[in-house]
Parts: sequence; structure tokens; C-alpha cells
Amino acid sequence: MTAPTGRRRVVEWVDGVARAHEDRLIAEEPLEIRVAAPGARDRRLGVTMRTPGHDFALAAGLVLSEGVVAGRDEIAGIAYCTDARLAEEQRFNVVTVALAAGPARDWQERSLRATSACGVCGTDSLDEVADLVARLPVRPASRWDPSALAVLPDLLRRHQQHFDRTGGAHAAGLFRPDGSVVVVREDVGRHNAVDKVVGHALLEGGLLGGDAALNLALCTSGRIGFEVVQKAAVAGFTAVVGVGAPTTLAARLCDQAGLTLAGFARDGRVVVYADGDPSTT
Amino acid sequence: MTAPTGRRRVVEWVDGVARAHEDRLIAEEPLEIRVAAPGARDRRLGVTMRTPGHDFALAAGLVLSEGVVAGRDEIAGIAYCTDARLAEEQRFNVVTVALAAGPARDWQERSLRATSACGVCGTDSLDEVADLVARLPVRPASRWDPSALAVLPDLLRRHQQHFDRTGGAHAAGLFRPDGSVVVVREDVGRHNAVDKVVGHALLEGGLLGGDAALNLALCTSGRIGFEVVQKAAVAGFTAVVGVGAPTTLAARLCDQAGLTLAGFARDGRVVVYADGDPSTT
Repeated sequence: MTAPTGRRRVVEWVDGVARAHEDRLIAEEPLEIRVAAPGARDRRLGVTMRTPGHDFALAAGLVLSEGVVAGRDEIAGIAYCTDARLAEEQRFNVVTVALAAGPARDWQERSLRATSACGVCGTDSLDEVADLVARLPVRPASRWDPSALAVLPDLLRRHQQHFDRTGGAHAAGLFRPDGSVVVVREDVGRHNAVDKVVGHALLEGGLLGGDAALNLALCTSGRIGFEVVQKAAVAGFTAVVGVGAPTTLAARLCDQAGLTLAGFARDGRVVVYADGDPSTT
Repeated sequence: MTAPTGRRRVVEWVDGVARAHEDRLIAEEPLEIRVAAPGARDRRLGVTMRTPGHDFALAAGLVLSEGVVAGRDEIAGIAYCTDARLAEEQRFNVVTVALAAGPARDWQERSLRATSACGVCGTDSLDEVADLVARLPVRPASRWDPSALAVLPDLLRRHQQHFDRTGGAHAAGLFRPDGSVVVVREDVGRHNAVDKVVGHALLEGGLLGGDAALNLALCTSGRIGFEVVQKAAVAGFTAVVGVGAPTTLAARLCDQAGLTLAGFARDGRVVVYADGDPSTT
């Protein structure tokens, strides 16, 4: 399997003075994710440019947030391509998620729906996520203490390994209200890092198992867009916090799904965009 | 059309003290891009979450970098959906690119190819881009002075408007060797900002017109991944520079396509990862 970082000769210029040395770069390779349902032909969910490592978790997170599965028990297994004729580099760039039964939802139809209709807008996107969130076990609306969220980006930073070596990796982490960490994952792609965290929680952590006491915050190293909040909402997390700014649609989705949303969390400052109470919107 | 930013009531906490005020967020809305060829049914190229504005340029940049067209003269027109029954919000979220003739390349087949074969890897990705780059008018390999690239992120920053107001926008800019600016575009998505720049150059700037004197650098506010370099290479730009780090595959693509690649450009420092000479690899 490809390593998560790679070496390269570079020339560094500082105030016009050149120095050649070896540098370490974050690795990037395509990963194709396929879905295999009993009695059906494999279908491709997509290809993402990712940093190799935790590929099964990435695939698990993606099938959950895309609505292909609604829980751990719908996944029979996850494996790399087993075609022995392939070069090793290729073999580790295709992951197949085997479903326990037919897909819980016709996700291919979902993907094609916008082609036949003429409209697509933020409200449609919110409605689609609402359909996915509606399948979650009911959880109480949970309010997060802003001071507990404010410290998470610093904690996330301390768990990053690839960033220190490459300066080029995004990170996502899952934290409990007391600040203890569940998992931290790094990737060249912001969304991939989140998928790896969601997938870890799904595969290892009993996520979506109906435990109403589960109260977890997703922390991201980047800005907070709609898709990051979608992944958190569909996974049943109760807060999203980041160093960066959220978007208009990300904030609307937090309102709708009852998530707490906080941004610009650093140096004792945090801005709360949604307070986790759906009734206030 | 939706505005590029939106207002929202927020609560800002600084060292435990709360202050409610109105904040401005970067807008995010889905945009569906369709391709219409004479005598064929419209096909959907994709949906991207973008900041509204410069949507035609975004669509033009995307059809170029995805290999649907190879130049300006293959685009007959670009328009929003004209279905009058739609709500206004939806009408401005669908853009159709009308081709002058059939697609120059079977891009749907390209998208499906990885489904029938079992392999996908970095080398395949590089080969695909090489096919697209091979269609460009031949350009001389161009070497960029590192000190000229080092200042571009600062210049880009000075042209950003939405970032100052929201803290949540990425930017991409196109610059000449003397540091003069061709165009700067902002978007919630890093790739969208690049597509808007590429599309502007294609639609307005005579890009790909066979002018061998064209020597332009793409500057991005973020990290430099494979897809950003792909867009620059297919557009015929000769350098990519950013504030952030490049990935392994981005550097390999610059080697192959003969682009200069520089990262970590700030405060008089810049790191050169590829020097623009394909023969050195």
C-alpha cells in the first residue's frame, strides 16, 4: 500500500537565498468505492483523491453519509479489490463495500433524480439530508457549552501527525463533552478526513446503535461547509466546530437538524452560529 | 440570484464573555452543470456546492478541465435554466453548456471506464490528464523566477473581497510574470474558485488560442492537490503557487506536464517543488 507521505527534493528560497533539501509531502492517490449488493452487479459510488490509510473507514463513512446504508448491520464486509492480476498500487485503490441485503435506499436513483427534474437548490439539499437524518434513532436535542467546543481545535491539532511532517493534511476528530478524544484522522481532503472519522465511529464505536446517551462533537481543521455538516448530522453527532468559518447552508442545516455549530474557535474565542435547539429557528 | 454572502445572528464568546451580534457568512448553494450537444439529450456533468456568482465561468472551467471541450470555439453558449415554472432560487442553480458540435471526447465513457476495469491509481490519473494536455497548442517550457511566484499569494489576498467579510472564502487568481493580475475569483470551494478563473480565461481571455507567449501562473489560497494542478495544466498555465503545501501526486503531475510548482509562499519564503522543465524528471 502507498505510504501516507512521500519524499521529494525541493529548493527552498528565503529572502532570495536558495537551499536544496529533501521535503516530505502528503500522499494523494485515487480511491474508487464500489457497492456490492447480494444478487446485483457492483456499482461505483465514486472516486475520491485521498491520502492512503483507513480506507475501509473512509468507504464506510461515505456509504453512510450518502444514504446507501443506515447502520452498521447493513454492511456485510469491506475489502480491497482481490483481482490478483492487478499491480499492487492499483489493488489498494479500489474498495468494495458488501451490503448485507439490498440497499436500504435507491441511492443510484437519488443521484440521477436531479437530471430529470429541472430544479436544484439549497432547500432541496436540506430536504435530502432531512430524509437521511429522519432514519436516525431519536436523540434528545443537546446543548454544548461553548467553552467546551472552543478548545477542541487545539486538541485536534495536538493529535495531528501528518500535518507536522507535511503541512498539507486536513484533520477531523470526534470528541466527548469532557474533551476526551474518540478518534482523529488526517487526509489531504477535508471531506475524506470527516468520512474516516464517521466510518470509524460506525465500524468500531457502535454509532447509530440507538444509544441516546451518545453525545459527540465533530471538529474539523478547515472551514465548515454543507457537506461536512451533512456527514455529522447523518452520523448522529450533536455538534460541529472548526477553526474556520461556516457557510450559510451549513448553518441552515444545523438549525434544521438540531446541531450546535461553532466556528473561528481559537485563542479563547468561539462564535456560535446555531445553538442545537431546532425550535429556535 | 442568491447573494454571495448572507447575514446571521450569532453569539461570540471571548474568554467566557458572550456578545450577540450580526455576522456575515459566505453563501453556499448547489449548482448543477449540464451539457447539451446538438441532436443529443442533455447530460449532467455534476453538481457542485458553490458560492453563487460567475456561474457561467465556473461551468466553462469545468467542461474544459473535465475534457468535454478543448477550446472556446467548441462552446456555442452557456445559460441558466429557462423553465419559467421554477422558483427563482432554483432557476439560477442550473447551468447548461451548449456545445457547438458533438463532444470532442466521450466524457461519459471516461467517467464510466473505471467501473468496467478493476484498477485505478495515480499513474492512471496522470495518464488521463496527459491525454487532455496533449490537445493543447504546443508551448515552450517556461521557467518562473521563484521571487516572482513568492509574492503572488500576498497579491491574491489583496484582491479578496468576500474573505474580508466572511473569513470563509477560498480564492484563486491568474497572474502574469510581472505580477499584474488577470482575474481573481472567490468561492466557498477551492476547486470552484479555480474553475471560475479557468472559465474566465477561456471565455474572455483568448486562452487556448494558440498564443505561445501566454505565460500565466495560477495562485490558490489553499493547499495544492492533484485536481488543482490538473485544471491549471489543461488550461495551459505554466505555474501553480499557493500558501499551502502540495501533494505527492500534484508534484508528479507538474513534472510530467512541465509546470513550475511552488508552495508555502509567504513572508519572503517559497518552496519550489517542480521547476517547469519536464526533462529533469
